[in-house]
Amino acid sequence: MSKKIVIVGGVAGGATAAARISRLDKQAHVVVFERGDHVSYANCGLPYYIGGVIKERDALFVQTKEKLTARYGFDIRALTEVTAINRDQKTVSAKNLATGETYEERYDVLVLSPGAKPVVPPIPGINEAANAFTLRNVPDTDKIHDFIEKKKPQNAVIIGGGFIGVEMAESLRERHLNVTLIEKQEQVMAPLDPELAALVHDQLRLNDVNLVLGKGVSAFEQEGTVLTLEDGTKLQSDLTILAIGVRPENELAKAAGLDIGETGGIVVNQFLQTKDEAIYAIGDAIEVMDRVSGRSVHIPLAWPANRQGRIVADNIFGKKTPYKGTMGTGIAKVFDVAAAATGNNEKTLKKYGIKYAAVHIHPSSNAGYYPGGMPLAMKLTFDPENGTIFGAQAVGAKGADKRIDVIATAIAGGLTVHDLQDLELAYAPPFSSAKDPVNMLGYAAANIVDGEVQPVYAQEVDRIVQNGGLLIDVRDPMERDAGFIEGSVNIPLNDLKDRLAEVPKDKPVYVSCQVGMRGYLASTLLRQEGYDVHNVSGGYKTYAAMKR
Amino acid sequence: MSKKIVIVGGVAGGATAAARISRLDKQAHVVVFERGDHVSYANCGLPYYIGGVIKERDALFVQTKEKLTARYGFDIRALTEVTAINRDQKTVSAKNLATGETYEERYDVLVLSPGAKPVVPPIPGINEAANAFTLRNVPDTDKIHDFIEKKKPQNAVIIGGGFIGVEMAESLRERHLNVTLIEKQEQVMAPLDPELAALVHDQLRLNDVNLVLGKGVSAFEQEGTVLTLEDGTKLQSDLTILAIGVRPENELAKAAGLDIGETGGIVVNQFLQTKDEAIYAIGDAIEVMDRVSGRSVHIPLAWPANRQGRIVADNIFGKKTPYKGTMGTGIAKVFDVAAAATGNNEKTLKKYGIKYAAVHIHPSSNAGYYPGGMPLAMKLTFDPENGTIFGAQAVGAKGADKRIDVIATAIAGGLTVHDLQDLELAYAPPFSSAKDPVNMLGYAAANIVDGEVQPVYAQEVDRIVQNGGLLIDVRDPMERDAGFIEGSVNIPLNDLKDRLAEVPKDKPVYVSCQVGMRGYLASTLLRQEGYDVHNVSGGYKTYAAMKR
Ligand SMILES: Cc1cc2nc3c(=O)[nH]c(=O)nc-3n(C[C@H](O)[C@H](O)[C@H](O)COP(=O)(O)OP(=O)(O)OC[C@H]3O[C@@H](n4cnc5c(N)ncnc54)[C@H](O)[C@@H]3O)c2cc1C
Ligand SMILES: Cc1cc2nc3c(=O)[nH]c(=O)nc-3n(C[C@H](O)[C@H](O)[C@H](O)COP(=O)(O)OP(=O)(O)OC[C@H]3O[C@@H](n4cnc5c(N)ncnc54)[C@H](O)[C@@H]3O)c2cc1C
Ligand SMILES: CC(C)(COP(=O)(O)OP(=O)(O)OC[C@H]1O[C@@H](n2cnc3c(N)ncnc32)[C@H](O)[C@@H]1OP(=O)(O)O)[C@@H](O)C(=O)NCCC(=O)NCCS
Ligand SMILES: CC(C)(COP(=O)(O)OP(=O)(O)OC[C@H]1O[C@@H](n2cnc3c(N)ncnc32)[C@H](O)[C@@H]1OP(=O)(O)O)[C@@H](O)C(=O)NCCC(=O)NCCS
Repeated sequence: MSKKIVIVGGVAGGATAAARISRLDKQAHVVVFERGDHVSYANCGLPYYIGGVIKERDALFVQTKEKLTARYGFDIRALTEVTAINRDQKTVSAKNLATGETYEERYDVLVLSPGAKPVVPPIPGINEAANAFTLRNVPDTDKIHDFIEKKKPQNAVIIGGGFIGVEMAESLRERHLNVTLIEKQEQVMAPLDPELAALVHDQLRLNDVNLVLGKGVSAFEQEGTVLTLEDGTKLQSDLTILAIGVRPENELAKAAGLDIGETGGIVVNQFLQTKDEAIYAIGDAIEVMDRVSGRSVHIPLAWPANRQGRIVADNIFGKKTPYKGTMGTGIAKVFDVAAAATGNNEKTLKKYGIKYAAVHIHPSSNAGYYPGGMPLAMKLTFDPENGTIFGAQAVGAKGADKRIDVIATAIAGGLTVHDLQDLELAYAPPFSSAKDPVNMLGYAAANIVDGEVQPVYAQEVDRIVQNGGLLIDVRDPMERDAGFIEGSVNIPLNDLKDRLAEVPKDKPVYVSCQVGMRGYLASTLLRQEGYDVHNVSGGYKTYAAMKR
Repeated sequence: MSKKIVIVGGVAGGATAAARISRLDKQAHVVVFERGDHVSYANCGLPYYIGGVIKERDALFVQTKEKLTARYGFDIRALTEVTAINRDQKTVSAKNLATGETYEERYDVLVLSPGAKPVVPPIPGINEAANAFTLRNVPDTDKIHDFIEKKKPQNAVIIGGGFIGVEMAESLRERHLNVTLIEKQEQVMAPLDPELAALVHDQLRLNDVNLVLGKGVSAFEQEGTVLTLEDGTKLQSDLTILAIGVRPENELAKAAGLDIGETGGIVVNQFLQTKDEAIYAIGDAIEVMDRVSGRSVHIPLAWPANRQGRIVADNIFGKKTPYKGTMGTGIAKVFDVAAAATGNNEKTLKKYGIKYAAVHIHPSSNAGYYPGGMPLAMKLTFDPENGTIFGAQAVGAKGADKRIDVIATAIAGGLTVHDLQDLELAYAPPFSSAKDPVNMLGYAAANIVDGEVQPVYAQEVDRIVQNGGLLIDVRDPMERDAGFIEGSVNIPLNDLKDRLAEVPKDKPVYVSCQVGMRGYLASTLLRQEGYDVHNVSGGYKTYAAMKR
């Protein structure tokens, strides 16, 4: 007999699961409940429609109910909310939001893909703010779009510097609004470490986004038109976007007695099954295993939701497929640059107490002698003992996505930093260099694992110099005109071997250059002369970014 | 005591080896012999300087003798040719080409990185052609550049459609010459299979390159100003570029009794050592192991030369590092598209008699609803039994390089087509789709391995239809207006389940759509109804390309 499968949520995870199920078994009876009026819409496109880059509202509908029904024959119940899961009866209670009608629907297998909802913090006055919006779905988008068209707001405030906040900053600038972005942390885009986030800050400021870091909003006043920050500053806002983060829609699952993890996500096993074997859960609503650290995390992104949608269908039909976990590979366009990351960054590794090392490089996106190359800033985190790759970050106008995808693939393949050297990547001058930046990360990182060089990080340098450490800047004197690390002594690389007498041997020596490469060369020289030498990872460029 | 290392050839492989050696051991005495006047130049940039895209000749010099000497202290002997290796004495004989002086230089270790030279076929009249050039180094480039400046040629003929030929076609079009490209095979760019090469042909023709395929040149007449093709056609040429291929500079090695392989490359072990343990060889001069098939091949590209340069240095200093082989990952810009490939294509697999399957997809470079997405044509070859990835090809205006790099990394990690599904790649609408094209290749290929669908290839379709096979085109009738496969019967996908009576069950059924996706959906339906059904990989789009 054919299976009856009920799915809650008809967008990224839910619609993908339904489509795959219908391919695997034409006889399966699939019912998709969707609270909203639309299924299969492009959540990720919403900011761009608001910004006018996506011109047609219709473009947001990747598929429509009608097309999906015609193609796959599943039974879509839009504008219908599932209000309870009755595990004993194997039914869900559903409410048609248009008619108010309620009914129960039987299932053999239930798939929960209800997503996550924007966090609305309990800030005083927030409920009286008629100009404050969150952004999750098409109705939210329509509201913001209409508000802009009708009310012609001039000053917008975005609260939250995650990728949605940053994308909204860009989109509202596209609409010529004055934009202030407020982020409680000292940096936007948490997947990046501070010295890379600094480059995103640069882009935001360059594009006239008023960036307020390290301060939260403490009150909404005058119906939300005045925002008070924690330090008392007041900001005028005609339009406020709350983009503070999202939390799993776990209420249904919780009420049904399913396990909820510490992150708030529904707990599932590797086959995406909850503790009730007839109930699977996927997407933004669940807690997943961090593929790098093995810990439980909540990573609300479209790739995992789509992947899990496919896997859940396979598992329901006995093609047992484990979900391998999530690395958090992500990317955002920030005006002219892309900011991308995968795996665990330094902040995360520190938090977990994992021993790590890092390298920073500043290559060009393609061969220096071919026009159009753009600077890339990259960072790789790895295990200094065995070279296991923990994660990578990249910010740049070109090729950041490519390098992060390659490293995500390397992590998936269990490759080490030594293996990055062996990646044979496509080279012609318009696309890369004969040693691709990923190879270069491999070289630089392997030198640390192999003990050829000892790194020191930009954030440690000031303290070292203050404590009387000797920092040699091996750049040419002219380069120092554009800035140098306070307290550093200048001995150009090519002079170093003749000026060794100036370098005392009885204490550690620190070397620094523009990007880390000449510092490394100086290190090899000094090390071979018997010095205990440390190279500033990423050189002055990384140091200067960190200082901004 | 410090080692004396002599290197023959001071460009990609040789200079990289010298630089790494000098980092590993400041005491090492490194002598670099270079026949030409320049070391460390950008071979790969030469076509672009001729075309004027690289404006400054100086940009071609990645490093100069002076800078390398100042930084690394090695001893560069430019304009000096090594004329013999005296293995018993452990010396090389060198000739200063400026002074005519000859001398012997002792070595502890010898590294050969002499590269490969352009093939000049023995075509009658070729030696009298004053307007025919090969392109390998800076003097060659200067000659062509000067010839264009001074002689103002109007009609150029390029012989050979490898990547250098294709890049030269673009470069000479940049210079507004009329360009004819002659290729003896039926397609340009051998790393691509014909249906993907067809897209490169499109680009060439779109940019007014007169493409002559399947014909060789049989004679040069009138001092090379008239070329006669094998079929008697005569072409007028003011400037002829010979880009037929290269062959290893193996003469020194051969004369010294070192082993030369069938490809003409010097034979080395995995540590890049010739049969004389004091002599290493790297770069275009050697034969390597195809990392996918394990066979001996000659792959003259910059990445392997650079990688081997680094490895050889490590091996000389006891940091034993095997060279893992070459996949042949390569890319070329062809006007507005990139054509990239890695691993073994279908032609190669056929030649080797390896059992394979293939999938073709035609995704957009990024989410369809976000502007700027460009069509990509991709092909993956793999083992239909266990999903081992053999290779991939991609042609498109955006993102071909990224996807090929990801797949090259997957191959390096030993990943299968199933693992491609699990690659968590960076997604935001400007960069990709929630299911990246690489994931999609994984899905489509895994369906073949798992027996969910049986592929049939575009090149087999005509024969099948001619033999009375039933080919159902499941596109909408309107789509057929723009072309369809002769002999196919139209039953649109959404009507198929109601029109099954029209489909006889006693023989295989073939289905086809625009790109392969709806054909796959039709396949799943028919298969579940008990049909023996085969889906045309890549659909009409791939078929039509193959036919061009
Ligand atoms: C503005 C925005 C931009 C984004 N940009 C990106 C990006 O660039 N890259 C990226 O990777 N990710 C992005 N995301 C995240 C991505 O969209 C989500 O990770 C993904 O959609 C999660 O899929 P899901 O199926 O879990 O949930 P959703 O796609 O949110 O679908 C859940 C659906 O379930 C419905 N539902 C919930 N409860 C019930 C119920 N009780 N009964 C019936 N229906 C219910 C909801 O109405 C909703 O439509 C973005 C998200 C937003 C909001
Ligand atoms: C026009 C052109 C475009 C290219 N584009 C690309 C590209 O886009 N991507 C890519 O991957 N590859 C490209 N390549 C190939 C790439 O340049 C080579 O694979 C790479 O340079 C090989 O390095 P090598 O060290 O083996 O040889 P080379 O770099 O050629 O260096 C060999 C040197 O050895 C010297 N030499 C030879 N014999 C002797 C001797 N007896 N004594 C002294 N010196 C000697 C030669 O003068 C030469 O300078 C291109 C090549 C050319 C010619
Ligand atoms: C639209 C939607 C329902 C499509 O789901 P889907 O059918 O699984 O995905 P696609 O349409 O991309 O099709 C993929 C299928 O086609 C197959 N396919 C694709 N191209 C193919 C080709 N050229 N040849 C053969 N098969 C092909 C794949 O193998 C896959 O089938 P499988 O899962 O059975 O292996 C779902 O993705 C969705 O709702 N998306 C919008 C919401 C969303 O994702 N939001 C977040 C991002 S904005
Ligand atoms: C110019 C040339 C001599 C440079 O060789 P090289 O020194 O090995 O290469 P690079 O200058 O890129 O430097 C790489 C080194 O710097 C290190 N490095 C680079 N960036 C670094 C950073 N930010 N921090 C620390 N180390 C860094 C790498 O680890 C590597 O050192 P290692 O090999 O000891 O590990 C050589 O590549 C050459 O001749 N190229 C031109 C010819 C050519 O390649 N032609 C074909 C393509 S057109």
